Amino acid sequence: MFNVDEDRLRRIVEVLRQDPYAGLLGMELLEARPGYSRLSMVVRADMLNFQGTPHGAAVFSLADAAFGAAANAHGRRSVGLTMEICYLKTVECGTTLIAEATEEHLGERTALYHITVVTGAGDLVASCHGVVYRKKEGFLDNR
Amino acid sequence: MFNVDEDRLRRIVEVLRQDPYAGLLGMELLEARPGYSRLSMVVRADMLNFQGTPHGAAVFSLADAAFGAAANAHGRRSVGLTMEICYLKTVECGTTLIAEATEEHLGERTALYHITVVTGAGDLVASCHGVVYRKKEGFLDNR
Amino acid sequence: MFNVDEDRLRRIVEVLRQDPYAGLLGMELLEARPGYSRLSMVVRADMLNFQGTPHGAAVFSLADAAFGAAANAHGRRSVGLTMEICYLKTVECGTTLIAEATEEHLGERTALYHITVVTGAGDLVASCHGVVYRKKEGFLDNR
Amino acid sequence: MFNVDEDRLRRIVEVLRQDPYAGLLGMELLEARPGYSRLSMVVRADMLNFQGTPHGAAVFSLADAAFGAAANAHGRRSVGLTMEICYLKTVECGTTLIAEATEEHLGERTALYHITVVTGAGDLVASCHGVVYRKKEGFLDNR
Repeated sequence: MFNVDEDRLRRIVEVLRQDPYAGLLGMELLEARPGYSRLSMVVRADMLNFQGTPHGAAVFSLADAAFGAAANAHGRRSVGLTMEICYLKTVECGTTLIAEATEEHLGERTALYHITVVTGAGDLVASCHGVVYRKKEGFLDNR
Repeated sequence: MFNVDEDRLRRIVEVLRQDPYAGLLGMELLEARPGYSRLSMVVRADMLNFQGTPHGAAVFSLADAAFGAAANAHGRRSVGLTMEICYLKTVECGTTLIAEATEEHLGERTALYHITVVTGAGDLVASCHGVVYRKKEGFLDNR
Repeated sequence: MFNVDEDRLRRIVEVLRQDPYAGLLGMELLEARPGYSRLSMVVRADMLNFQGTPHGAAVFSLADAAFGAAANAHGRRSVGLTMEICYLKTVECGTTLIAEATEEHLGERTALYHITVVTGAGDLVASCHGVVYRKKEGFLDNR
Repeated sequence: MFNVDEDRLRRIVEVLRQDPYAGLLGMELLEARPGYSRLSMVVRADMLNFQGTPHGAAVFSLADAAFGAAANAHGRRSVGLTMEICYLKTVECGTTLIAEATEEHLGERTALYHITVVTGAGDLVASCHGVVYRKKEGFLDNR
């Protein structure tokens, strides 16, 4: 495992914040440390589906970003292998969603995360389970 | 089950094409009929992640849109219950991705879809499994 | 929802304890209440796979039994829709495994459970995510 | 990758046939070759659940055995990382179930399988998606 000191974590978080796709969807990284992260996103009109409710994939996107941040904050390049989402509740346009990723298992080559997406009021919108493959290279290599 | 004649399907497809989130990501609906759909999307620079590769959630979004189109093309309002994605290959920015959803099972209350995302060259990028809950109301009700 | 008083729960647990498949694998129901259950199983020689380690499906079986017990302890007949397992660690023959199911979400028609399988020493062996469909009939109807 | 000639495959299949857990559940290996397998199992009374229908985990067990056989028939030791099952239909006690595993993707370190469980009449009972981690050692090493 890599040792992630404060300075190194600060640089990792800087890179995480520059994620273009997270920018497209207006996500905000609230917190990231090895094995944990929390992000927020406001459901915009262009994130709705043909039924007028938030697109499942927009909700997934927030969860997936939390998943990637929690895994990569260890300082080792991690790529998603599988991700499973259970959709539990729909919300209104304009709602702020919070995704929180926690680590269930950290192995040498793989790691497992549990990610929840909730409203500000604490209602559970979706719950996910994701596995990453942990590469040998460092997250900041070649930067 | 609902009977979907040609005119009804044309109206359903019109609604599917107006999906705001699919518009945000530049998706194109190539084909939709009961239990089947095919969509394309070009990976843009604002769909990359902090590693400079297409964000897993952008790939998922295309698959999820195909999932929703195939299920709702039956003419009955269907909402996603669960979706699982396996990431298999990464691609370059600018690549055109094609998602294809096929129906594995159509029950009275639930239905199961298999969705693949491939490149134009036929390389498998991701494979998904999704379950919908089929509501009693028609897809075009209140429109 | 059904109201599950003590006497009713006792009768539900009695039925759960008579599960033939759980009996085949020597499972013991340690606790069951609405939305929660805990079961144990000792890994026997006839639960190993061709690699000489516990068969993944034997581990899954314990988790699935916990899933079913937690869901049905509400007093309403619940059937599994989907279940996903992540295998995290292998153990020796003779190990006692404990599965614990907790409820992440209880809806009118569906409910979501998180199930972990651990050793007596607390090592995480597998982690699961399962969704049930909740029927209208009571668990004890026709008994 | 390993080259699997006829003789080597025969020896692999012999080992697969001696799987103790598959024996406990009376499974029969009908066919196995690199990336593919087919197994059958008759639903016995001791495979029912408390509802009197086949236990989901018994159905899963057959699918999981097919998954393992298809992956290991490449001659390289493969262990399950994740497996997801969608339950689609229940059957009577005494029914013969057939599981068939096909390979969706074969990578250097991981591989993805699609597994279906059907009745003799062709009804789809369950559909699964499973990912293995492919170790460096050969399947027959140390035998």
